Amino acid sequence: MEIWDARPADAEEVARLLHDFNVEFDTPSPGVDVLAPRLRVLLAEPSTVAILAGRPAVAVALVTFRTNVWYEGPVALLDELYVVPHLRDQGIGTAVVGRLFALADERAAGLIEINVDEGDVDTRRFYERHGFQATEAGSDERAFYYWMELE
Amino acid sequence: MEIWDARPADAEEVARLLHDFNVEFDTPSPGVDVLAPRLRVLLAEPSTVAILAGRPAVAVALVTFRTNVWYEGPVALLDELYVVPHLRDQGIGTAVVGRLFALADERAAGLIEINVDEGDVDTRRFYERHGFQATEAGSDERAFYYWMELE
Repeated sequence: MEIWDARPADAEEVARLLHDFNVEFDTPSPGVDVLAPRLRVLLAEPSTVAILAGRPAVAVALVTFRTNVWYEGPVALLDELYVVPHLRDQGIGTAVVGRLFALADERAAGLIEINVDEGDVDTRRFYERHGFQATEAGSDERAFYYWMELE
Repeated sequence: MEIWDARPADAEEVARLLHDFNVEFDTPSPGVDVLAPRLRVLLAEPSTVAILAGRPAVAVALVTFRTNVWYEGPVALLDELYVVPHLRDQGIGTAVVGRLFALADERAAGLIEINVDEGDVDTRRFYERHGFQATEAGSDERAFYYWMELE
């Protein structure tokens, strides 16, 4: 299956997958009509990359890059990773994460981050298997993700 | 106490506080000589803001702004918040967070984020008191922060 980075012209396809993701997991989505034009702008900037799998796409990862004082290179945040339900457990997520690693390498990123729900044990295991950690070596101290939505 | 946003010329002062922060909490720091020139570049960009308290500064918050597909405005991440040890519990952290809220408002940010260590109960309580949440209303599902450092 082809793994490829979306261009601004692919915004609608990316938006559709991200919208389906939120609908499946009962998370509010502003809808494809709002997401697509926003993505057309974001995907034209180097700070946002959408990795797609297959044509038409059946999986998406949304990655943002930002600066950070502790690293010479950028920090990559994996904002979203979604594979359509009927194609899960076939290695597509792993292939997409492989492209994330290559991308982080190309950009000389110092760190890759991701926030994973505590109860989402399969997802946590998936990222741990791919080398992500929630604690420092020799420690059982984890960090929680806190947030505040603004009007 | 004056709360102010650092300019690039204040990079050394910001670097000193961030370095002291990491030394106090046994976290590796590349040192002031590496951090200061990096901050001189970062503080010239709108995506990084260092909020300082007092002259000379006795507290710092480092905030980065990035885009996010789910919000029309930017997302603000509070990367660091440090108050020198002998001036804690006097409201300086609250004053700095007040500036963070004002800044998020000025930029029309949609979300403010922060990662807080699980065992750091006082810090978690501090952010909860200021309106940050780790779970959705009606849920006890929290998210863990996962990361991978790259060479």
